[in-house]
Amino acid sequence: MSLEEERKKASFSPTELTQYLYPNYLVPQLTLERIIELNLKCSKIPELNYSLQKFHDTRQQDIIRAYQFGTALKKFSESEKLTRWERRFIMGFYPELTAHVAQYEFFIPSFALQANEEQKKLLLPKMESLEITGCYAQTELGHGSNVRGIETQAIYDENTQQFIMHSPTITSYKWWIGGLGLTATHALVAARLIAKGNDYGPHIFLVQIRDTKTRKPLDGVDVGDIGPKFGLNGNDNGFLKFDYYRVPFDAMLNRFARLTPEGDYELLDPNGIKILYATLVSLRAGIVTDSWYRYACALTISIRYSLVREQFPDHENPNRERMILDYQIQRHKLFKNLARLYGHVFAKKPVSDHYDECERRLFKGDDSLLAESHALVSLYKVYVSHFTVQGLEECRRSCGGHGYMMLSGLPSLYMNHLPTVTYDGDNNILALQAARYLITLMKKQNPQGVFGFLNTPMPDLSVCPDIKDSTYHQICFEAIAKLKIQSVFKKEQDLIAKGFKKPRIWNEFLQVEGIEATEAVYHASLHFYYIEGISKISNLLIRNAIEILRLIYASTELAKYHAELIRLGMPNSIFEQLKEVQLDSLDRTRPNALALIEAFEISETTLNSVIGRKDGKIYQNMVWTSKYMNPVNKGKVFPGIHRYLRPKL
Amino acid sequence: MSLEEERKKASFSPTELTQYLYPNYLVPQLTLERIIELNLKCSKIPELNYSLQKFHDTRQQDIIRAYQFGTALKKFSESEKLTRWERRFIMGFYPELTAHVAQYEFFIPSFALQANEEQKKLLLPKMESLEITGCYAQTELGHGSNVRGIETQAIYDENTQQFIMHSPTITSYKWWIGGLGLTATHALVAARLIAKGNDYGPHIFLVQIRDTKTRKPLDGVDVGDIGPKFGLNGNDNGFLKFDYYRVPFDAMLNRFARLTPEGDYELLDPNGIKILYATLVSLRAGIVTDSWYRYACALTISIRYSLVREQFPDHENPNRERMILDYQIQRHKLFKNLARLYGHVFAKKPVSDHYDECERRLFKGDDSLLAESHALVSLYKVYVSHFTVQGLEECRRSCGGHGYMMLSGLPSLYMNHLPTVTYDGDNNILALQAARYLITLMKKQNPQGVFGFLNTPMPDLSVCPDIKDSTYHQICFEAIAKLKIQSVFKKEQDLIAKGFKKPRIWNEFLQVEGIEATEAVYHASLHFYYIEGISKISNLLIRNAIEILRLIYASTELAKYHAELIRLGMPNSIFEQLKEVQLDSLDRTRPNALALIEAFEISETTLNSVIGRKDGKIYQNMVWTSKYMNPVNKGKVFPGIHRYLRPKL
Repeated sequence: MSLEEERKKASFSPTELTQYLYPNYLVPQLTLERIIELNLKCSKIPELNYSLQKFHDTRQQDIIRAYQFGTALKKFSESEKLTRWERRFIMGFYPELTAHVAQYEFFIPSFALQANEEQKKLLLPKMESLEITGCYAQTELGHGSNVRGIETQAIYDENTQQFIMHSPTITSYKWWIGGLGLTATHALVAARLIAKGNDYGPHIFLVQIRDTKTRKPLDGVDVGDIGPKFGLNGNDNGFLKFDYYRVPFDAMLNRFARLTPEGDYELLDPNGIKILYATLVSLRAGIVTDSWYRYACALTISIRYSLVREQFPDHENPNRERMILDYQIQRHKLFKNLARLYGHVFAKKPVSDHYDECERRLFKGDDSLLAESHALVSLYKVYVSHFTVQGLEECRRSCGGHGYMMLSGLPSLYMNHLPTVTYDGDNNILALQAARYLITLMKKQNPQGVFGFLNTPMPDLSVCPDIKDSTYHQICFEAIAKLKIQSVFKKEQDLIAKGFKKPRIWNEFLQVEGIEATEAVYHASLHFYYIEGISKISNLLIRNAIEILRLIYASTELAKYHAELIRLGMPNSIFEQLKEVQLDSLDRTRPNALALIEAFEISETTLNSVIGRKDGKIYQNMVWTSKYMNPVNKGKVFPGIHRYLRPKL
Repeated sequence: MSLEEERKKASFSPTELTQYLYPNYLVPQLTLERIIELNLKCSKIPELNYSLQKFHDTRQQDIIRAYQFGTALKKFSESEKLTRWERRFIMGFYPELTAHVAQYEFFIPSFALQANEEQKKLLLPKMESLEITGCYAQTELGHGSNVRGIETQAIYDENTQQFIMHSPTITSYKWWIGGLGLTATHALVAARLIAKGNDYGPHIFLVQIRDTKTRKPLDGVDVGDIGPKFGLNGNDNGFLKFDYYRVPFDAMLNRFARLTPEGDYELLDPNGIKILYATLVSLRAGIVTDSWYRYACALTISIRYSLVREQFPDHENPNRERMILDYQIQRHKLFKNLARLYGHVFAKKPVSDHYDECERRLFKGDDSLLAESHALVSLYKVYVSHFTVQGLEECRRSCGGHGYMMLSGLPSLYMNHLPTVTYDGDNNILALQAARYLITLMKKQNPQGVFGFLNTPMPDLSVCPDIKDSTYHQICFEAIAKLKIQSVFKKEQDLIAKGFKKPRIWNEFLQVEGIEATEAVYHASLHFYYIEGISKISNLLIRNAIEILRLIYASTELAKYHAELIRLGMPNSIFEQLKEVQLDSLDRTRPNALALIEAFEISETTLNSVIGRKDGKIYQNMVWTSKYMNPVNKGKVFPGIHRYLRPKL
């Protein structure tokens, strides 16, 4: 059986699915025609393509490759006059894009948001032309999630009308800053503004740290690369310390606040704090909207591999071995993830739409959506990153030993995606913030909005018209979420009644249960978007195939809440039927699995995997690559073996 | 608060705990005095110690470091006249020990087991003196877990009385073989014995593959390193292909079977197959007995870090920040793992004792314990590796962003331990084998042995004398395991009644549920050993501290089976009390946490972590190491920046 024959088994046209997914969900900013065109053009520029050689490289070579990618992208961007979204789309190919991502995704947008008109007029052109290259320096060695605790100081000196940038403690070293380690000439530095002895808390300053020509660090600036990481080693995450380093008066970005030359503080826009807060939310929304890409890569590799790899004699034909995707446990591992991937895809648009609407209102001075949007995006940031990382590892393990080889492409997907659970708000902290928001809804009489369902009456789960009915599943998910949020709410009320204060309650008593409750709310929300997404598919064949994935999602996630379902009155017979639906849906997905994942059209060069090839020729490829691309195999004898091993061994 | 002050909080003496743990559980083969002596002596030999420099090295340097370790170990071993267990203990410091581990743990023991007396007399001395260095070559590109499916051929040529080693297909390449890639001069090759047209299945042949002086591969042998992996990159896992390569008649190991010069097959010991099968089991038992080490490393790092790291204002003292171990969620993450680690420690002795007894009997021709031992060891191999890997990652994440730095030591613990879920029997396959064995017990009237409890009457869970009572917890664990195994058994019987054959049932219908059931059996077994282990501790202060860990273990794992507990009649009030016990036990463990993990006495050099230091000076250390040990920071300007970035950017 070849992959080509497998492709014929699908009940629908994967091309039509691709045409539906891309403009509606995956990359709504671009037409599919333009995506195909960009893919084709990029595939002809070697620097914009992964190579298996990468896995044999040193960190220095990784960094250089990232520079080469960035330089080639800039050239391509200019010759093709790429839009912002087109550039972002191409940047998505490559996770280690230090200079460019730092510049275009963090440095310029943050500057544009927080500088006043005069500052923008003066400096934005230099930033766009890359005369100035920069980074956004907020996190410190001692302070990550707790932004208000940052220690770097910007002390105003009225006499010279300069700011003195200073790092007073070891923990005040800026740390983890992308693009800072080796590259940036300028940094947007978050520092406490101190003037006339008053501490006005964190503000942003544009600080030159390296000579723009030689790139040598300037005096008074201690800057460098923080060292190797679990992944993303082409990035130069950096550290930065100031030793009473003086910068001019206009270094402070002045859109929301400023200092008079005399050192008096003026708040220019009281809305500023909320807008900055929203920026953080937008970074998190980015994780929600972009994570499908690596998830689809891992599933493409592992589903193709599972259709080529055979193991153990087949009970139907003992002289042949059985394809591993024909074992129930392999289907369970992979299709559970395929179903989640589609869930993430259907949810990403409504979640980012919600945030966009929130942002639009905010710029008009209306913050009515901010709290809800923050909770919604937090919930999705937490669980999309969590389940994607978990899924990447499940895909990797489903490929057995070969999934442990770097050449499989699977380890680096995991290594590079892993930090999404930690950065832009650690998952635990965001989940707790979401929990506390959701609890507050319990006090509202009739809460509206995306979490309104949490304060509605409990349904009766004992009657199920049809075990595959999506409405029944939705009712179950919502009931579980209500039960769990209400339980935490009740415990909070009990603790308050006993005289405990909220901060203590949320540090010491309700964190574990509070976080657990948010997961149930997430599933209820995601399943709602899943149904909504499916309802919009007009192609019946496609709709039916994806509806089976929804069944896998619903039955898998609901099964985790068996105890809650019992408490909510679901009879055991219904629960048993639900488990049967799960196993049955795995089998029904089998003929469509390849088409469902290949509709994501991940190219071979971005996959960069010896075991995930479209032609299924994995073994030939593995042997060739290990033999001829592996630097330790050069020469017949490993250099050093005689010196370090042979004389003694 | 310093770590020194934290150490004073413990309710017991960690030194006494160390003295109890090491000889009784951790390293029962050596006295604690000898361990301390070996640790001290090794700490003075640079090659036997990790260094932070390692994280900056290339793969070539990793391999060389492994050689240096091996060479230094051999020298030390000779001068100190180390026993086998002493050598093993020291090898445990270093996970990437290609030549030595391959030689002493795989090559020599396999040869000694399968060669006849004559062969041993001739060759064992050369192997012990390392004149011959070898590897054990079984796994192929196309066949891992399915040993019977291997394809490499050893075709007997009666005319020359030679074997012709041949790799007939691309999938028959030997692959993953440790120590083969660059080092071994000889390989024990598992190949199908083919004589007079008969295929006798896999047998073992000792084959020279490289020149012992020059280490050049011999003609007809295609050998090399398979390339970079997720971890363990100091190891030279290799590939090997034969092209009608001739070896002498005595290459075949002859203890269990042999060929006459005429090419007729003679089975010499019908017990042979079972003994070889037991060897596989012993490798798995090794994973169970050794995994505590890396788990303890990760917990030492993350508990120390959590006692130094502060984040967010403390509700009791808003001018200070709160130590992260004083948040409930951090305690939950770490102490759940600390409790598991102690469980693994208490279980490892009874499990390996069981296997040792099985092996003793087997050599006497008595295979009565083999099936049970295989199931027991499989169960523990699967879940000890699973929970250890999961725990290593939970520890890493609990250190936030800094846990993503290689210098934290945490990523490499994960990377290097990860393959334990795949090698020596993939976890899914072993769990399925265990499930099928456990199901067979349901047919026995009165099964004895370690799983005898599975076929006893269901208990009444509605009456709980004391919510902290370990006997009650044990009854609950066993009841859950029974419920789940019996449910799978019933489904199997139903499917058989419907006319399905067992192979199909176990490929297509019962894999998911069968595997889930084994986890419940594992917890019941582990909890039994936990109680047993605690009961033997005579020091009451230590016993009390570890009993609280057992409460964490029991309440955490039982909570996962809430639905089963409801079905078994546990009232909701008891379940709620159990959850309270869990949270309360986390808080009660807090003052003892550091002592409970430091009792494992992991040395600073084996920890090799900037954030897990005994003196708590993490930030100073991070800055110094990133600044001065990081090769990309050498010189003020990164070489290549002008060439690859500057002209364009």
